Amino acid sequence: MTAPARRTGGRSAAVLASIRSAVEDLVRERGAERVTIPLVAERAGVNPTSVYRRWGDAATMINDIATYRLDPSRPLPSTGSLRDDLIAWAAEIVTHYRKPVNAALLRAGAAVAGEGQSDCLRNRRLEAAQLVADSAVTVEEVVDTVIAPIVYRVIFLPDSLDDDTAVRLVDRLLPA
Amino acid sequence: MTAPARRTGGRSAAVLASIRSAVEDLVRERGAERVTIPLVAERAGVNPTSVYRRWGDAATMINDIATYRLDPSRPLPSTGSLRDDLIAWAAEIVTHYRKPVNAALLRAGAAVAGEGQSDCLRNRRLEAAQLVADSAVTVEEVVDTVIAPIVYRVIFLPDSLDDDTAVRLVDRLLPA
Repeated sequence: MTAPARRTGGRSAAVLASIRSAVEDLVRERGAERVTIPLVAERAGVNPTSVYRRWGDAATMINDIATYRLDPSRPLPSTGSLRDDLIAWAAEIVTHYRKPVNAALLRAGAAVAGEGQSDCLRNRRLEAAQLVADSAVTVEEVVDTVIAPIVYRVIFLPDSLDDDTAVRLVDRLLPA
Repeated sequence: MTAPARRTGGRSAAVLASIRSAVEDLVRERGAERVTIPLVAERAGVNPTSVYRRWGDAATMINDIATYRLDPSRPLPSTGSLRDDLIAWAAEIVTHYRKPVNAALLRAGAAVAGEGQSDCLRNRRLEAAQLVADSAVTVEEVVDTVIAPIVYRVIFLPDSLDDDTAVRLVDRLLPA
């Protein structure tokens, strides 16, 4: 009974991977606001109906792709120093969003955010909670001091992100 | 020679005001991604051609409306205390963006941001520069510590903005 289920899982994971890759290519080529479900289905070689069944509309699809683009199951930094962990984690986020396609996905996610279910940064907040567990630092402090300035700059001032951004922001929370 | 020019200015200011009000109504009613230039022109009672001539496409139009929605010529707080000025200024921004239509306009502006000319928060940064002139606080610190957390919360966590947000954020920069 389990083998067919496993096969189905493998096939739908492959379909999802090809849809994600099609969305990223099209966002890069055309800009997020001109990406439609029929275009994505054609590029991914899948039936538009199955894309519509999963997401309903292009905005929800792009937001969902933006959500899962940073692998939520990757290991978090664990150096023994909260400051070093936060710097490594923030630097990874900065590096990710300095790629124009990822910034475009975040902007597209921002456009459809604001309701509980459409929040493409939920996983980053969950990671922050893991990192600060058992410390005096709160998730809210990490959100305001580290995540928010990175996200603001990705969206509005992408050229202002550099190799020092992560250290500079974490320094405000936990000075060296 | 000046009277006709003044009349023309008055008329185009009135046209602009009716377009802005049409955009705000339509964003409230339909969501920013379903607002088109023909719809705005119809609601504002103007010719679509004149809207296209001014903005080219709906995303640029909405971004521009989002940019000018907080009057850039209003007087900035000037209490004699930088901390109090920043709190009053930040509280005004929070109050503005707690209105769902203004949050929707900011999200729409975020979607088309990222190039120098399409930055709906440029005026907020210019105001920050005025407020911190002649102090040891830098614009970058105000951007990271006050503006970015407000904007992040407007876009992704609108229910987390409250009456204490402005004080709480400015406290991180200039403790009481």
